[in-house]
Amino acid sequence: MGSGRILVAQGGGPTAVINQSLVGVALEARRFRDVTRVYGALHGVRGIVDEEFVDLTQETSHNLELVAATPSSALGSTRDKPDEQYCAEIFHVLRAHEIEHFFYIGGNDSSDTVRIVSEQARAAGYPLRAIHIPKTIDNDLVGSDHTPGFPSAARFVAQAFAGANLDNASLPGVYVGVVMGRHAGFLTAAAALGKKFPDDGPHLIYVPERTFELERFLADVKETYARHGRCVIAVSEGIHDASGAPIATLLAKDVEKDAHGNVQLSGTGALADLLCDAIKARLGIKRVRGDTFGYLQRSFIGCVSDVDQREAREVGEKAVQHAFWGERDGSVAIRRTGFYSADYALLPLTDVAGKTRTMEDEFIAANGTDVTDAFRLYLRPLLGSGMPDAFRLRCARVPKILKP
Amino acid sequence: MGSGRILVAQGGGPTAVINQSLVGVALEARRFRDVTRVYGALHGVRGIVDEEFVDLTQETSHNLELVAATPSSALGSTRDKPDEQYCAEIFHVLRAHEIEHFFYIGGNDSSDTVRIVSEQARAAGYPLRAIHIPKTIDNDLVGSDHTPGFPSAARFVAQAFAGANLDNASLPGVYVGVVMGRHAGFLTAAAALGKKFPDDGPHLIYVPERTFELERFLADVKETYARHGRCVIAVSEGIHDASGAPIATLLAKDVEKDAHGNVQLSGTGALADLLCDAIKARLGIKRVRGDTFGYLQRSFIGCVSDVDQREAREVGEKAVQHAFWGERDGSVAIRRTGFYSADYALLPLTDVAGKTRTMEDEFIAANGTDVTDAFRLYLRPLLGSGMPDAFRLRCARVPKILKP
Repeated sequence: MGSGRILVAQGGGPTAVINQSLVGVALEARRFRDVTRVYGALHGVRGIVDEEFVDLTQETSHNLELVAATPSSALGSTRDKPDEQYCAEIFHVLRAHEIEHFFYIGGNDSSDTVRIVSEQARAAGYPLRAIHIPKTIDNDLVGSDHTPGFPSAARFVAQAFAGANLDNASLPGVYVGVVMGRHAGFLTAAAALGKKFPDDGPHLIYVPERTFELERFLADVKETYARHGRCVIAVSEGIHDASGAPIATLLAKDVEKDAHGNVQLSGTGALADLLCDAIKARLGIKRVRGDTFGYLQRSFIGCVSDVDQREAREVGEKAVQHAFWGERDGSVAIRRTGFYSADYALLPLTDVAGKTRTMEDEFIAANGTDVTDAFRLYLRPLLGSGMPDAFRLRCARVPKILKP
Repeated sequence: MGSGRILVAQGGGPTAVINQSLVGVALEARRFRDVTRVYGALHGVRGIVDEEFVDLTQETSHNLELVAATPSSALGSTRDKPDEQYCAEIFHVLRAHEIEHFFYIGGNDSSDTVRIVSEQARAAGYPLRAIHIPKTIDNDLVGSDHTPGFPSAARFVAQAFAGANLDNASLPGVYVGVVMGRHAGFLTAAAALGKKFPDDGPHLIYVPERTFELERFLADVKETYARHGRCVIAVSEGIHDASGAPIATLLAKDVEKDAHGNVQLSGTGALADLLCDAIKARLGIKRVRGDTFGYLQRSFIGCVSDVDQREAREVGEKAVQHAFWGERDGSVAIRRTGFYSADYALLPLTDVAGKTRTMEDEFIAANGTDVTDAFRLYLRPLLGSGMPDAFRLRCARVPKILKP
């Protein structure tokens, strides 16, 4: 090889373990004697076209380990979605810096960026090795059993609903928790793992893989409330009607006639508030509370799956190994090989780039408002060790004296 | 003593450690040979007037320990605020069941309930010992250094802001996090403990102890955004204008003319959304995100301070010791005796009942948008051991070639 310079960058929404992959690349690359420099681009592809690089070789392994355990993207991220021209600029900079290995940690869009850059290098006869390293809390990359970042976010959602259920049991009413996920319901479905006893919440789960009908929703809530005297609901921010229009927008028009502008899905409590308003108005239930998990679910420090940490580190390491010992570009994928163990593979970029996975039918219960045992078995080992657990009093009632 | 029956109940909002106090009472009471039964009332004072009692004596110590480590109120809670007549009914039931020791775990309202019941027993010549056991995430009980439940909620808020700051640094913009606290800003101020580096957020903190002025708020945000290219803000749900009117209500009228009904402070994302709308509209900043921590901050399972757990257990134990070995009714208070150590005292009920503590002036910075080092020293030891920590890359920039 030539320059011995490699480049790594992080794109899209941060996760609790994305720095594990970054550090996996940096530390594994140091083991290859051909590598002279490990560069990091600041704020993803934006930092590449702006030539904003830091030299990760000039960092201690001790601090790299501490950064690995820190959530969010240590190099910074970007929401830029590169088109062909943008990718040509990326390639232009890689060539100028004589970078012959490019690692990009990100989701669907990032894999597509790597695909285009890879193709442009080949067309130009430039000796580039380009590897996509997966991450997304949405778990919506095709070809992987799951994606790094999802297990830790799922753990947050499961713990949040375990707690919300206890709170709701203590002061009964209706609780609506809105979880991230525009097209894929995996993260919302993780709420089911917060349930322990048969009458625990979440009692109802709504994912974007199923059409949301307000009337059926209200009927579900009414029935659950009648049975349990309370109701805990997990709702994906991406729920939509039969036409595909997000409910957040539809309800905003119904309930608040002159709401202005588009209702964004994250970073606003609108959907939770609107569903709560509908429950109060239509079902006459007094205590109705809505929480939007927002950015807490992806950036909360101190809630992480150790399985996720380990795998995120490994996909970074495997990316370097594939780059130096393999013969083609690709996207690192996680394969499940046991209950529970994982291995890694390198998929062709065209198998992953720009594609979106949604929840498989066998993971969604027939009634459309719960998950299946197959999903519980799928997710449980990913949540990692030390999951907190909830216990109840089981003691006998005391006979009444005044009002027997 | 007579019947040997004691009663314990839990009132108001749940906390992460309120069951520690319950179990502290149950286990400590068993050590007194005079105690024949430990009753628990379901759903607080409501369960007393309805005679809904369970017999905690018929529970294993093993399961009691597991319940102690479970957040929220294991006996259930209530929002009932008893008046004199309601307290008379409570006393009527206590007398019917020959209960001579009454322990109520709760906040300001609960302490007032204990006070009235205590006075009615004395007036009737009934030999009742009534003890109030403190709990509230608001930290607004007078006479205590702090209240059980607050440290764990503060830890959640600090961890949430540490993560939100990392997320915001990765994808810069404005982030508004709305924290519980109607009159006291302690919990919102805890956001400051999530800050590590000088340019970290939260950059601005707004508590109900200071009048909120929208124009000044926007000027603060504008200045911070100009300096750091981003801005992380902690806002108490109870912020109000000079007349004492909650901003949630005021802004709702301004921004959304035909919003109907009262804006409740918790369980809705309205305040965060309205502040975000104001920032977008007035400052022209594009990426503005708001999260309302809602019920997550008080019921999240798996985020707890071990100091808080220990103290919540001890106030329960001390309540029993005061009841059996002391000579008067009262409210258990936490005293700080070292950095860090605590001891307990029994305050007269009239010193605590119905009073509200707010943040002391020495805890709020002169500019009104930050806390002081005195507050940091006050809070840090309460957060307990094992606080997660955030680290940064410190490596050198790579010289530019194309755009030097």
